[in-house]
Order: sequence, then structure tokens, then C-alpha cells
Amino acid sequence: METWDAITSRRNVREFTDRPITEEDLNRILEAARRTPSSRNSQLWDFIVITDPEQLRRLTGVWRGAWHLAGAAVAIALIAPDSDDEATLRSIHYDMGQVTMSITLAAADLGIGTGHAAVHDQGLAREILGYPEDHFTSWLMSLGYPADRPLAPIKNPSRRPFDEVVHWGGW
Amino acid sequence: METWDAITSRRNVREFTDRPITEEDLNRILEAARRTPSSRNSQLWDFIVITDPEQLRRLTGVWRGAWHLAGAAVAIALIAPDSDDEATLRSIHYDMGQVTMSITLAAADLGIGTGHAAVHDQGLAREILGYPEDHFTSWLMSLGYPADRPLAPIKNPSRRPFDEVVHWGGW
Repeated sequence: METWDAITSRRNVREFTDRPITEEDLNRILEAARRTPSSRNSQLWDFIVITDPEQLRRLTGVWRGAWHLAGAAVAIALIAPDSDDEATLRSIHYDMGQVTMSITLAAADLGIGTGHAAVHDQGLAREILGYPEDHFTSWLMSLGYPADRPLAPIKNPSRRPFDEVVHWGGW
Repeated sequence: METWDAITSRRNVREFTDRPITEEDLNRILEAARRTPSSRNSQLWDFIVITDPEQLRRLTGVWRGAWHLAGAAVAIALIAPDSDDEATLRSIHYDMGQVTMSITLAAADLGIGTGHAAVHDQGLAREILGYPEDHFTSWLMSLGYPADRPLAPIKNPSRRPFDEVVHWGGW
């Protein structure tokens, strides 16, 4: 798909069909994630891939907004090292935003929808996913084919108007 | 360009040719930025576009890592409202990461390179760009055509190995 079509077709998807994601497509999405730039190329991330329905169902317990994981074909947990340093944490959140967009555009390019959820119960997420005590789940992403309608370019996205958001030469 | 080519061609670019970016291409990159998803669609961002060489030169003063702005065809300042709430700030940084990736992939699709710089001297950035006291510049992005060689798919990016970063079913 053309890049511009992927950019304009992307939307939050939280209800999915039963269609699985092929290993080839999943590897490509994960490769896009791995290639994401990060502060000083520090790559302070690990990705846990979940396809087991029982694990997906249990993960919905980490936050009320995580219900959509139950119906996802695949979830990707974005794991980061914890830090006491606020600047480091901000940098991690920024880089995780970059990873999220890499995943979501690489997925949209394949017709695969994505949604994401915050994790409030880190203890439960750690119990299910088995990552070390000094790491946390930054976000959980759901992936799958949209249940409502295929991804297609959106003409008028629900966003602030271009001329309000963009300033030329100064505020 | 195909999405996958844009994803694999993207790299940090900090030295640029004199070739300007057309208004059409610039508007498309800004439209990609505007379409970026954000927490509850809050869109806590404004984009200031700088093309004036003197403004670009002055902006290099905001941080030693911002030197590349001087040679950029265009800079985009990612402006956000300030907040005392750490959770809000983290969310802003995450969303700015998503914006950054939208800009960088929309630019790569057009053969345009991007680099970004943090802003340490917020006072100077505010003086040059004229945004309100209760806002800050999250990042400055440089855009232009790469001086060294055109963007092209990178076969072996400098990243941690796939099998180290990706975990299946659990840590």
C-alpha cells in the first residue's frame, strides 16, 4: 500500500474478526517496531507477543480500557525498564509513542487494525507476561482485522482544523 | 512510495541540500502530523513551521544538539501546553512520539529526511517563536533533502537483534 494510504487509513480499531494474522505479516510489523528510532539509539524496549486466547483474556484485567484485547488476533506488550529519573521516563514514553506509530502504520499497510490500552495493574501484567520486576508495560496494543469495515482512507478525520494547529513562522 | 519502503528508508538526517520543500509536500507532512492519534483525541499540540534562514539559525541556540536546524529547509516545532501533572506530561510525550513518527514517515515517503532536537533553552525558543508562557517546545524537527545520499531501504539497521527484542508468549 502507498504510505499516504496507510497514514490516512489508520484509525483506532478495538473490535476484530476471527481472521488470524499470518506469521509473515506479524514479523513485518515487529520488524517495523524494532527499526524505530530512539534517544541515542538506546532502544529501551522489549516486545512480548501474545496470541494465546486465554492470555489475551486475562490481560483485559490490567485496565478497564483493555477489554479489546480479548478479541484481538495478537497483542503486543511494549515493555520498558523502570527508572527513577523523570527525564529518562519521559524519553521512554516519547520513544514508545514512536514505536506505537511504527506498529500501527506497518499494520495499517497490511489492512490490520490496531488499538492500544494503558496498564494500571502492573502486577497482573507481570504475572501473566513474566517480565522482570525492574520493567513495566508501557502499553498493550491489540492487532487484528477490523470487525466493522476494512481500513480505507478517511477524508475528514475528527481532528482540530489544519489552520488552527499549524502556525507559520511563529505563534 | 510503498509504506514498507518508507519505513525501511527512514534514518536520522542532519545535513541537508539547499533544495527547498514544496508547499504541497510540506502541507502533506503537516496533514500527517495533524492526523496522529492522541490520548482521548486530545490533540495537545500545535505545530510552528519555520522556513526563514535567520529564524532557523537562531533556533540552533536552544541546545547544542540543535545545530542541524541551521541547514534545514524547514523546521517544525512541536508545541505543547505545560502541565504540573506528571501523568499528563507523560501522555504528551507519548503523543509527541507518535507525531514525530507520523512526520518522519510522511517525509521519508517523499524522499525528505528528518532529524530532531530537544530544547533546553525554552526561553530562547519562546522568544523566537512567540508561543504563550504556558506552552513549551517538546521537540524541534529539521526537514530537508539529505546531503549525503538519497533515502533508500536499509537492509541491516543498527538495532538490537530481532530475536533479542521480540519475546513470544512471555518474557
